[in-house]
Amino acid sequence: MSNRTKLSDEQRLDWLRLIRSDNIGPRTFHDLVEHFGSVGAALTALPDLARRGGSAQPIRICSRAQAEAELKVAHAAGVEFLALGEPDYPARLKMIDDPPPVVAMRGKLEILLRPLVAIVGSRNASAAGMKFAERVARDLGDAGYVVVSGLARGIDAAAHRASLATGTVAVLAGGHDRIYPADHIGLLEKILIAGVAISEMPFTWEPRAHDFPRRNRIISGLSVGVIVVEAARRSGSLITARLAGEQGREVFAVPGSPLDPRNEGTNGLLKQGAIPVTEAADVIAVIEPILGRGPELPSVQEAAQEPLAPAATEPGVDERARLISLLGPTPVLIDDLVRLSRASPTIVRTVLLELEIAGRLTRHGAGLVSLL
Amino acid sequence: MSNRTKLSDEQRLDWLRLIRSDNIGPRTFHDLVEHFGSVGAALTALPDLARRGGSAQPIRICSRAQAEAELKVAHAAGVEFLALGEPDYPARLKMIDDPPPVVAMRGKLEILLRPLVAIVGSRNASAAGMKFAERVARDLGDAGYVVVSGLARGIDAAAHRASLATGTVAVLAGGHDRIYPADHIGLLEKILIAGVAISEMPFTWEPRAHDFPRRNRIISGLSVGVIVVEAARRSGSLITARLAGEQGREVFAVPGSPLDPRNEGTNGLLKQGAIPVTEAADVIAVIEPILGRGPELPSVQEAAQEPLAPAATEPGVDERARLISLLGPTPVLIDDLVRLSRASPTIVRTVLLELEIAGRLTRHGAGLVSLL
Repeated sequence: MSNRTKLSDEQRLDWLRLIRSDNIGPRTFHDLVEHFGSVGAALTALPDLARRGGSAQPIRICSRAQAEAELKVAHAAGVEFLALGEPDYPARLKMIDDPPPVVAMRGKLEILLRPLVAIVGSRNASAAGMKFAERVARDLGDAGYVVVSGLARGIDAAAHRASLATGTVAVLAGGHDRIYPADHIGLLEKILIAGVAISEMPFTWEPRAHDFPRRNRIISGLSVGVIVVEAARRSGSLITARLAGEQGREVFAVPGSPLDPRNEGTNGLLKQGAIPVTEAADVIAVIEPILGRGPELPSVQEAAQEPLAPAATEPGVDERARLISLLGPTPVLIDDLVRLSRASPTIVRTVLLELEIAGRLTRHGAGLVSLL
Repeated sequence: MSNRTKLSDEQRLDWLRLIRSDNIGPRTFHDLVEHFGSVGAALTALPDLARRGGSAQPIRICSRAQAEAELKVAHAAGVEFLALGEPDYPARLKMIDDPPPVVAMRGKLEILLRPLVAIVGSRNASAAGMKFAERVARDLGDAGYVVVSGLARGIDAAAHRASLATGTVAVLAGGHDRIYPADHIGLLEKILIAGVAISEMPFTWEPRAHDFPRRNRIISGLSVGVIVVEAARRSGSLITARLAGEQGREVFAVPGSPLDPRNEGTNGLLKQGAIPVTEAADVIAVIEPILGRGPELPSVQEAAQEPLAPAATEPGVDERARLISLLGPTPVLIDDLVRLSRASPTIVRTVLLELEIAGRLTRHGAGLVSLL
């Protein structure tokens, strides 16, 4: 898991098995690796952890054969797998709170070394919105930037199409074998000639509604900034903008007439302080100085170099029971749990990890958790 | 000239004579009154001042008869004259750097006590822009605000029309007897039923191009804030926005598609930090707290209470010659004049005043002057 070493095939198989197992999301993955010191050790500990967390039945752990099968069929389709910390893993994506432990990528991966800017917006965009997205995507492409988007209809597709020649990245909500919408398969083939498709989901994963917001964190995570072209209230593009803000990325919004509800979200972003964009130069002026500084090194992998002594972090039966009794359907702060339980933060984290793997814990963000 | 006293008819006549005389703008008016201690004294000193400033021929001083004639014909048309410092002079207009010494007003003057907000924009506005201006004007009117604008075609007219019932103020670039554009005379009559028309120009003054930017400082000066609805690059509305900023008033801009050049100015304002507006509530949220504080008291009238001792400010022949020799067609800083001439700031101000009244000085703002 060192910062600049490629994994062995065996290690990569373990990474894939762990992230493909039940109740393991990116955050739990990192917590487990931090706790047990390696992916292999986490895999071994998983059944016991789930049992202690109170899982009614054994959780499904991705088998070696299943992981091998996914790698094989994906490789045949030209998909490469990269684990967090490997040299070619996208530089800025490493820096987010919950980076995908493994990303599956197809296409000209070398373009990921160039600066990436996301362009997102409404599926039912106006003609003016599409035209503007095309113009900005083309101008950014000509200026050496790679355009990231979500392969959706409307603004996303317009942004991809205008940057086919200069390089564009499609971030998928499902697996590489389940392109959504299906009638964008042709567009994706064109994207791959000079660009990239990325997914963190299993090769044959059919995307569901809640996979899209999850995917959006990768769109913003890859990028130095996110340009929102048209966005209605409560739209997915606003989620991407919010995530971009949380990830410390620049948020740009294109002004639009207040009489068109498709501009409600973008104008709202402007009111919240997003940078107004009327041409690519507005974006470049903000991003260029940031590129000079380069992405910061991630810290998560560093921390994982030294496995913690398991003895010090093993909760006693009483401690576990006390913590579970403090939890309920109402979200509480982890800090409050530590204070009220008088257990050490490490113990509290361990019990929460057990509960999570058992499928009994919900994390609400901002340090809030609840018991299912 | 006290802050809360009405002028006598005789005094008001003097005020009008001074501001209607050649080479006297609002700034020179105030400088003269400050220098000589009263409007009457300034009037008396004018011919001598112009001669010392090197005027080739005697400057035209508005005669008592001319001022009386203007007052008479304007009164007959329902126009009232208010001098700066009189109780009914508009409260916020007093606070600007160069308030009109005398304003001529027609209509329901009591609405000027309510909070005023300006709405300005393109003459060749889009249908969407006009509709938005109407919506915001109506909603602000319903919320108790008085809408100020410039009686122009397009956005101005839309804003006036939508606030006829709740009260609206038209600021004229010419005199009350020279309405521009002439086909808005009917609109003005409707405005006057519940609203006001204001002009600082002589009753029969035909507006020329450079009277419009001058008029714009009154639009912003009357108002707590200025909303720019649509504005092309280099448009008059942007001048109003700039003046509003200089006067410390809030500047609001309505976002619009970057593909329409009529939004270039407004989107540019957003990039410079103007507050985005998509509904009246955005304006009210900013303005309401400001109203709670109330306008600050002006200081100019206070200072004028105590006439300076003329002896101390009378430049010698040598000093005047030295100062004039330091001036030329290239603008120089008044501060540099003081330093280079080693004359006192008061002496320098006096000589500049003489030159100005003689029609030989141009002020460029930011303390820069040049000799014609």
